[in-house]
Amino acid sequence: MTGYRAEKDQLLRRLRRVEGQIRGLQRMVDTDTYCIDVLTQVSAATKALQAVALHLLGSHLAHCVQDAIAGGGEEADAKITEASQAIARLMRA
Amino acid sequence: MTGYRAEKDQLLRRLRRVEGQIRGLQRMVDTDTYCIDVLTQVSAATKALQAVALHLLGSHLAHCVQDAIAGGGEEADAKITEASQAIARLMRA
Amino acid sequence: MTGYRAEKDQLLRRLRRVEGQIRGLQRMVDTDTYCIDVLTQVSAATKALQAVALHLLGSHLAHCVQDAIAGGGEEADAKITEASQAIARLMRA
Amino acid sequence: MTGYRAEKDQLLRRLRRVEGQIRGLQRMVDTDTYCIDVLTQVSAATKALQAVALHLLGSHLAHCVQDAIAGGGEEADAKITEASQAIARLMRA
Repeated sequence: MTGYRAEKDQLLRRLRRVEGQIRGLQRMVDTDTYCIDVLTQVSAATKALQAVALHLLGSHLAHCVQDAIAGGGEEADAKITEASQAIARLMRA
Repeated sequence: MTGYRAEKDQLLRRLRRVEGQIRGLQRMVDTDTYCIDVLTQVSAATKALQAVALHLLGSHLAHCVQDAIAGGGEEADAKITEASQAIARLMRA
Repeated sequence: MTGYRAEKDQLLRRLRRVEGQIRGLQRMVDTDTYCIDVLTQVSAATKALQAVALHLLGSHLAHCVQDAIAGGGEEADAKITEASQAIARLMRA
Repeated sequence: MTGYRAEKDQLLRRLRRVEGQIRGLQRMVDTDTYCIDVLTQVSAATKALQAVALHLLGSHLAHCVQDAIAGGGEEADAKITEASQAIARLMRA
């Protein structure tokens, strides 16, 4: 079960755009682009990846976590702990 | 002039690895991988991109900035301001 | 209603420790401590603040958000959107 | 020797403001302020601390590092490595 089912196409489009940014970075390095310009593009790609993460996390909370809690049972606490740990990993990335 | 000339191959290898991670993310989403597992991989790719940024920045300081300062002239201050702004962009990404 | 009721003392202790770190930073600057040593302490204080944020967020999800969802009603979606926005603010801080 | 000598007062003012934000956070927690409002203030304090870090780093590059390089000698490389490591610590905070 995934929380991003309804936005799968949008998510894939975003990831393909990030892939394009990473390939663009390779071309920049390959053609000896000035370091600072490469760094600006690395910042942009990082920001785009973080936006994907926030999108995924939002869908996860709105679907998987919400369903687990609404369904009751002991799975709810485990889902919340798991989400908190994922947020911690993202903030430390 | 670029500061990463000597480590160009290493930088390209790292970027190709990040590209592989982004393509792996697309496969994960395409095959409906559980959100948290996708998020863990997004964190890993973000960390790898930040490592590329630190690598580039280190080379830039050690070559471009150092050369500008050693060469004297008014370019040195501009280089330092430019590097500080790039660091600010990375920290806010 | 707050989600951190049970851990209020622990949270206040952590915040007092961060306050001590910030006062320590003022003493360091006041006594002309070497920049890099000041920066190391700024990193430590930032990390401690981020830990407070993760703690608060975990309690919020485990109590406020979980209660809103378990109670049903339309408040649940609003709570999830609100939490997602808070996470986005933290990641961009 | 410090790089922030000329901006010491400004730096101390910023740190006192962050200290005020941290004390404000303690009052918020003490009076059971809603978690999300506390988190918004934690994000603001984190952002203010990161601004202090960028300020310090800029002064360090513009004075300590620049002087070491201009003075020639082998200290220059050590200063650049040290600055790169401080940047890495800040980005991972």
